[in-house]
Formats: sequence, structure tokens, C-alpha cells
Amino acid sequence: MRVLGIDPGSAATGFGLIECQRRAIRHLRHGVLRPPRGADLAVRLNFLHREIKALIELEAPEIAIVERVFLARNPHSALVLGQARGAILASLGSCGIRVAEFAARQVKQAVTGSGAADKAQVQKMVIRLLSLDTVPPTDAADALALAITYSAAGPLTDLPIRSRRRNTRRAITRLVLGRTQ
Amino acid sequence: MRVLGIDPGSAATGFGLIECQRRAIRHLRHGVLRPPRGADLAVRLNFLHREIKALIELEAPEIAIVERVFLARNPHSALVLGQARGAILASLGSCGIRVAEFAARQVKQAVTGSGAADKAQVQKMVIRLLSLDTVPPTDAADALALAITYSAAGPLTDLPIRSRRRNTRRAITRLVLGRTQ
Repeated sequence: MRVLGIDPGSAATGFGLIECQRRAIRHLRHGVLRPPRGADLAVRLNFLHREIKALIELEAPEIAIVERVFLARNPHSALVLGQARGAILASLGSCGIRVAEFAARQVKQAVTGSGAADKAQVQKMVIRLLSLDTVPPTDAADALALAITYSAAGPLTDLPIRSRRRNTRRAITRLVLGRTQ
Repeated sequence: MRVLGIDPGSAATGFGLIECQRRAIRHLRHGVLRPPRGADLAVRLNFLHREIKALIELEAPEIAIVERVFLARNPHSALVLGQARGAILASLGSCGIRVAEFAARQVKQAVTGSGAADKAQVQKMVIRLLSLDTVPPTDAADALALAITYSAAGPLTDLPIRSRRRNTRRAITRLVLGRTQ
């Protein structure tokens, strides 16, 4: 199963594609989409829409995992981030691909064991979990971490709602971090 | 020249199409796009993207006018509105159509003479300016008002920057309201 992680951003949108077979995961590719600077907003947003669509048509992932936004810092940054998310989600909708969301905190918890980990720690664990030879840009590392979290969390998300929160989070962390041992 | 006004919203996106010839304006059509309730976010945003694209391909407007957002009430509503705007602007970008933005205040000022007018007043003036037989939904009236404002403001937006603000606003109001006399 191919899983595409996407970390939306108006200036830089990270993506990361992995393949999962049972407990094993394999890195396929990652990158950062940067809309042309100085172009009109509609052109920049169409760039994101088009590139995500092209990526999905080329790589045929079964599911896309997008970072969930809980509380943006202020209305202006929420609007700007929302616009990038809107273009990307519309693109996923046009491909008819399944979409799931994880909060940044869940992803950090899953790949590092701490929901308060910084970007460098996530990046380091992604390199280790996927045995990468090179250092992925932080936006791409975040996207790969989203895909990795899904690969472990996927089977767990069918748990009854009540048992989810803390127990699920811990179980996901154990599954993901178990891989590095 | 055909002008398409768009008032983006996640539950209801208004659109209004008018034709301008010199000082004369003519109503062509208007409506409200309502993404399927209860559908996934990606499906709802793709609905907006697809419907706007279909509308532009069918009606071939030369320019789209989108309401500019200054200050959303809170980060959550800014994110939700941003997502709808992102899907719509990406759609406009994919059509290669020119895009301009007006703030709601500018539009209210232009069509009613007061930047603090409410939706009912805008609706009333839109009916009068376009000699409509029926009452358009408020979202569609807002979109028609955006197109009307552009039809008057278009030639004025080339004024030197310094003279714009107050003088331009007044001149636009005079142009728009002059039509009803």
C-alpha cells in the first residue's frame, strides 16, 4: 500500500511517499512544492492543485494524509494556510483518493515519542525509520512523518472511540518506535 | 465585457455574472453553489473548484472579482473561509482568467453609498441597479455587487496611488449610484 503524506503551506508544501507492507515501510520519494514567487495568488494556488494531482496520477497512492490544523496563531495566518489547504484538498477530491488527517502533535508523538518534539527531532527520526542516506528538507520530513504515522496508526483507528485517545497514541508510538529497535 | 463576481464561502458561494458596455451594465445570471452537505471536506472543496471552472468555461467572463478578506473573526473561521477561497482561486488560476479583489466595505460603499450597509441594503440596490424582477439570495447579491463595483471601478483603478483611497471610493460611488438616477 502506498501512502502519501502532505504538509500544506502557502510558500512550501512538503510531500512524502512511502510503501507499507504489513509492518515494513519503504521510502519511495519526497519533495517540496514551492509555488512561483511573485506570481498572482490564483496562479500559486493552481500550482499546488496541479502538482498534487500530477503526483497522484504518477504515483497512484491509495491514501493521502494531510496535517490537521487545530489552532492557527492568528486569523491572517489561518486564512493563508487555509487557502493552500483548500487548493490541495480540492485536488485530492478531484482524484477521488481517500484522505485522512493527523494533528502535528499526534505525528510527533508517534515518530519521536514526544508530542512536543521539534522539527529537527522529527527529521532525525524520519531519516532513521526510513534508512535515508540524505537529509530531507523539514517540510518533506514532516510529510514523510505523516505517512509513517498512518502506516502504524491505520489498523488502530478502528478501535472503539472511547479507548482511542491516550491508549491509541501510546500504541502508535510503540508500533512506530518498535521499528527502530 | 463579461464580469464574474464571486463571494466565497464554505457552505454557500455566491456568483453573479454581468455584462458591461461603456456605462451600461446588464444582468446575465447569478446563483449560489452549495457543496454537498455531509460529504468529506476534499469532496466539498472539489465541488467548488469544479463548478467555478465549469461556469467560466460556459460563460467565458474576462475577469473574476473575488471578495477580499481583511480580518476574519477568529482563526477557525479564517481557516474554513481560506479553504473555500483556496479551492476557488486555484480554479480561477487553472482557467487563466484575470482576478481582482475588492473588500466588502468598498463594495458596500460603491453600491449603497455607505461602507457600513447591511446585506439587505446591498441586495435592494443590486435589484435596482440591474432591474431584476426577482430577489437574488444574499450571497448571489453580494457577488453581483462585486461585479457591479468592478464595472465602475475598473477605469478608476489606474489612478495614481496617492489619489486613490477616499477620492476613488467617492468617484466609484458616484459612478455606480449615478446609474439609478
